[in-house]
Amino acid sequence: MNTFGQLFRLSSFGESHGRGIGGVLDGCPPGLTVDLELIRKELSRRRPGQSALSTNRNEADEVELISGIFEGKTTGAPIAFLVRNTDMRSQDYDYLKGIFRPSHADYTYHSKYGIRDHRGGGRSSARETIARVVAGAFAKMLLNTMNISIEAFTSQIGPIALEQQDSTLFSSELAAENPLHCPDREKAEAMMALIARVKEEQDSIGGVVSCVVRGLPVGWGEPVFGKLHARLASAILSIPACKGFEYGSGFDVSQKGSQQNDAFYFDGERINTRSNHSGGIQGGISNGQPVYFRAAFKPIASIRIPQETVDKEGAAVKIQIQGRHDPCALPRVLPVVEAMAALVLADACLLAKSKERIV
Amino acid sequence: MNTFGQLFRLSSFGESHGRGIGGVLDGCPPGLTVDLELIRKELSRRRPGQSALSTNRNEADEVELISGIFEGKTTGAPIAFLVRNTDMRSQDYDYLKGIFRPSHADYTYHSKYGIRDHRGGGRSSARETIARVVAGAFAKMLLNTMNISIEAFTSQIGPIALEQQDSTLFSSELAAENPLHCPDREKAEAMMALIARVKEEQDSIGGVVSCVVRGLPVGWGEPVFGKLHARLASAILSIPACKGFEYGSGFDVSQKGSQQNDAFYFDGERINTRSNHSGGIQGGISNGQPVYFRAAFKPIASIRIPQETVDKEGAAVKIQIQGRHDPCALPRVLPVVEAMAALVLADACLLAKSKERIV
Amino acid sequence: MNTFGQLFRLSSFGESHGRGIGGVLDGCPPGLTVDLELIRKELSRRRPGQSALSTNRNEADEVELISGIFEGKTTGAPIAFLVRNTDMRSQDYDYLKGIFRPSHADYTYHSKYGIRDHRGGGRSSARETIARVVAGAFAKMLLNTMNISIEAFTSQIGPIALEQQDSTLFSSELAAENPLHCPDREKAEAMMALIARVKEEQDSIGGVVSCVVRGLPVGWGEPVFGKLHARLASAILSIPACKGFEYGSGFDVSQKGSQQNDAFYFDGERINTRSNHSGGIQGGISNGQPVYFRAAFKPIASIRIPQETVDKEGAAVKIQIQGRHDPCALPRVLPVVEAMAALVLADACLLAKSKERIV
Amino acid sequence: MNTFGQLFRLSSFGESHGRGIGGVLDGCPPGLTVDLELIRKELSRRRPGQSALSTNRNEADEVELISGIFEGKTTGAPIAFLVRNTDMRSQDYDYLKGIFRPSHADYTYHSKYGIRDHRGGGRSSARETIARVVAGAFAKMLLNTMNISIEAFTSQIGPIALEQQDSTLFSSELAAENPLHCPDREKAEAMMALIARVKEEQDSIGGVVSCVVRGLPVGWGEPVFGKLHARLASAILSIPACKGFEYGSGFDVSQKGSQQNDAFYFDGERINTRSNHSGGIQGGISNGQPVYFRAAFKPIASIRIPQETVDKEGAAVKIQIQGRHDPCALPRVLPVVEAMAALVLADACLLAKSKERIV
Repeated sequence: MNTFGQLFRLSSFGESHGRGIGGVLDGCPPGLTVDLELIRKELSRRRPGQSALSTNRNEADEVELISGIFEGKTTGAPIAFLVRNTDMRSQDYDYLKGIFRPSHADYTYHSKYGIRDHRGGGRSSARETIARVVAGAFAKMLLNTMNISIEAFTSQIGPIALEQQDSTLFSSELAAENPLHCPDREKAEAMMALIARVKEEQDSIGGVVSCVVRGLPVGWGEPVFGKLHARLASAILSIPACKGFEYGSGFDVSQKGSQQNDAFYFDGERINTRSNHSGGIQGGISNGQPVYFRAAFKPIASIRIPQETVDKEGAAVKIQIQGRHDPCALPRVLPVVEAMAALVLADACLLAKSKERIV
Repeated sequence: MNTFGQLFRLSSFGESHGRGIGGVLDGCPPGLTVDLELIRKELSRRRPGQSALSTNRNEADEVELISGIFEGKTTGAPIAFLVRNTDMRSQDYDYLKGIFRPSHADYTYHSKYGIRDHRGGGRSSARETIARVVAGAFAKMLLNTMNISIEAFTSQIGPIALEQQDSTLFSSELAAENPLHCPDREKAEAMMALIARVKEEQDSIGGVVSCVVRGLPVGWGEPVFGKLHARLASAILSIPACKGFEYGSGFDVSQKGSQQNDAFYFDGERINTRSNHSGGIQGGISNGQPVYFRAAFKPIASIRIPQETVDKEGAAVKIQIQGRHDPCALPRVLPVVEAMAALVLADACLLAKSKERIV
Repeated sequence: MNTFGQLFRLSSFGESHGRGIGGVLDGCPPGLTVDLELIRKELSRRRPGQSALSTNRNEADEVELISGIFEGKTTGAPIAFLVRNTDMRSQDYDYLKGIFRPSHADYTYHSKYGIRDHRGGGRSSARETIARVVAGAFAKMLLNTMNISIEAFTSQIGPIALEQQDSTLFSSELAAENPLHCPDREKAEAMMALIARVKEEQDSIGGVVSCVVRGLPVGWGEPVFGKLHARLASAILSIPACKGFEYGSGFDVSQKGSQQNDAFYFDGERINTRSNHSGGIQGGISNGQPVYFRAAFKPIASIRIPQETVDKEGAAVKIQIQGRHDPCALPRVLPVVEAMAALVLADACLLAKSKERIV
Repeated sequence: MNTFGQLFRLSSFGESHGRGIGGVLDGCPPGLTVDLELIRKELSRRRPGQSALSTNRNEADEVELISGIFEGKTTGAPIAFLVRNTDMRSQDYDYLKGIFRPSHADYTYHSKYGIRDHRGGGRSSARETIARVVAGAFAKMLLNTMNISIEAFTSQIGPIALEQQDSTLFSSELAAENPLHCPDREKAEAMMALIARVKEEQDSIGGVVSCVVRGLPVGWGEPVFGKLHARLASAILSIPACKGFEYGSGFDVSQKGSQQNDAFYFDGERINTRSNHSGGIQGGISNGQPVYFRAAFKPIASIRIPQETVDKEGAAVKIQIQGRHDPCALPRVLPVVEAMAALVLADACLLAKSKERIV
């Protein structure tokens, strides 16, 4: 469905070439000061045309806040918002009306619904992530009041990867130097060169996002099916083009328990762990250490290189995809990853609050 | 929370050393013939002591079906079931009452709830997966009527990994030859030797499960936040010790779009893809190709090697964990992975059914 | 929360004097032809100023359909819609900023949220029902394809009540003659005279709506907590000013079982009941007979007669409510009652569909 | 479905003549001392055979608490419980296998599911309310810690009704004198005489339950679709045989706004209302006054008087219902009404807690 979250809930709507993209955020606590600048900043990070790495579809992405705010503060009522589509070139997609683009959602949507807005991917377009970014900005406002921060980095583009996997050690300052937000100067250069080359080849390339959350209290996340990392995985894998999620030691399963177990110690103020292979989560519940995870994004399916496919009737056709497309999901996906993490954490916060010891 | 699924819903309950583990399965369609043998077989695969690779806690794990079944068929009413605990040795855990085991959920449960059944991990014990396996067996019964199969394999133990990543190519026959269900004879031998060695060292080791689903129709899975792979990720990562999930090409992001895009073709009967980097899912919806995914499991946190930790008051203590523990989550986790996948698919089936074109 | 329904789900938003009222309808089946005329007609029935019986706040209530529709048909994607507020006179409410109007939600919202948009009742305004009416129109479109009709009547205003309680016997033709949609000419005259008198007195009056649903198939509604009448009750009592709900024989408990039991008989084509004290629902599931229910609406709390109350600090104040207010919730509430019933039935339809016998 | 509540959630299961009735209560806060005596007392009030007014099916209804409790306190884990069926006489129902009892759920369940446990009504039996009573006892334990009380009274049996409608004025002491818990000695006598007469006639009779909740804080209940009274209505109308719900002034719509509006005043400590036509709820949120509501129960459908009906094939048959049946849903339904109200309030409590002002 199109709703995410249990108590802090986003219902998203809109198509790439319809009237706009928007959402309704229900459950945001009252009294939160709305930081318009933050919303704009996050949208701007997601917007195309911000660097040579992305498409030049150029939309201001001005958000209208329709409800739930009074005199600059949230009221506890649902916050509806809308970003209108402006720079559409729907005619770019006319030739695709009855054709299924490879590795896109065209065929599955057509089969499931029997009807499909083919323009720019319609509902399955990554433009839908605008709603996530706006709602995520509200989640960040809430988390900011508790000094919780979320930061996503580029840690791999194609085969070029950082050696260091533990993103809690990444330097924000170094990352701020390049548009990929990659905390390694040389690697960042190589990654950008690769993206540029792939773009020239009219091809695309995949990558990996690393994300770290700092400042979480102990006790967020629910047992069994509501584990914090399971919610994060569901959130992150719902982002278009995401193919994998791991947290803490993740897929690095070569070590033994004696090497990966995180020893507890008391630092005079609180209980900490000496290592953090657990990625800040034990039994699905935050343990007060930084939470970190990684997400894999496949190469964007829209490439200008001619491809073989079929039309609705099954006839073989050759297509050359038009329109404006990024050669890589990164870096534009970074604010989306942060937004989804923020939505999960805001929800976990309210759930934890509801279960606080009453008696 | 302790409920999974939207229309095919499992509510699980029980603790490792309480009266038992059970669940309530609501939404199972009526008229399904109950295959008791399948339930027993799945429980038996999960049960300890089935091979030299696991602990010798030896419980029959007899399941009582309490409701929702009449004359051998499901009635559409909730199916409650209970597996009583019998071979408990709770006194094994007395020394742990106020101590937090490293990389376990002891500390986070204690902090979140202020009260904790410490015996055998209580609610956070992997014994809870019994409820998943029983409910998953019902999901399998439903999927069986549609000729949908789910099969999980061991594809990595510690550093020993299969080279082939695409589990749709794995041989079930080869896998059936060894208790790990690993489709490579030599690798399987090496893996079992490694587990035996680690067990002797009183240590533990991680591994990776690969899983393939065959026979899915086109159109299961929901858009945006209900994507089939996001639901699978949430389900699989909710299994104790799971640290990562990927589907299709997953974390292998080194290729370009022109290499990873799956070309469509018509085979005379239906539309297929020439490759399956998409892992059978496009835009979150099944495309009729086999669905495959991989899941990483960390080394079991319970090791007999002495470890440093703290007690409730923060005082440093050394512990040596007693009790009976597996050296590796595999192979016992294989039926749990299958069960969770089955629950996701049964739910997706009912959701797809509810949205079938009415008009 | 602000979301209604399980599979056919409305998320509503907006305030009386904010930018507008709207909603997101998720789960509407694809391929439904959008009947714009129906939406306009339903909104027009709800709109003030349609007869001498209501306030003269005069808004066109033009709805913008933002998403989920392509070439005149629903696509299965969420349908967002917005009705902008235009004829606001927010200054009418300035004097109420710190004052709690009697029998309004001012005090409870203030206490719960600590912040409140006081203009025109903000989120608690009955203007919020616009979202219900628009979404209800889509539900009606779906039900129309199955020849299911919903009709609400005025059956009581103040002490003037129809004698006949069974609304399945009401004449639609007679009801169409007067703005109250009351199926009794003389009673309708008396009711309208009473409303006119109460309006002149600057007071208000309560009433009862009767509603009948025809054409329902057997088998809609879920057992135990999802009973069709329980869902209807929840839906109808969520309408502002609604104080009671009964279906079938309802509060008429003076009869014996032998008098109220509905005998089954076979009419050659299907199984019917000779009487319908069950109101078309047995065990929470529709039995193929007409469903009928009644809903009580209190006198509108906004009256111009001076009243005693307190301000935020607890100081006693006298207020005389300004603004434009109806003397009676009827007849404007009739389309809202129908809309809520339609939403419940559309949801029940999809739920029933998902559980259809698979095996 | 078979689950009630959003954060304080009961999933119920079981059939009248199956192995037993039980439930899983998820979301109960940790640290609550379990009052076994209260559970037994509530079950005993619901149990048949407690007075001459009910059937003599005689089951001890011993509850087994299976999980979620450690050393006498709740742990925050799901609380599973089971009451086994013991005094079944399933053969009493053999003659009903293919026959639809009038005004029962036989026909609708048969049509919806195509399969049906006909013994004693199966899943649709009122014996299912055992699960509500046990879970409700936990809700009461939680509410007790906040000094919130819930009390249900008999206010009408057949045509014999109390004149006073406002149940906040009922005397608990007077009510305690008779098994109907009716706060009027003479009326109680007449009611009991009527039930006895109806029982002799092998017939049944309806009645009305009044219920009052004292001690609620201001601010429980959610806006728009989560209104406290809408949740109460849904809860109460889900009880078998319930046909109507009203709160506060309810169906008494003959008064004007100037008569029914509840004037606010400050009593030196807090803000109160001079009257309570609002029934303690304004805008769906508790205002600190007592909450009261009324619920109508139809005559029990099971009567021994011969009735006409049809069998599965539609053939006309005459039946005389066997088995042990109450002549009236009251007084045994009183603890069920209280339990459902308690479940709604416990859920509202946790929801309110989750939304408490964070900033």
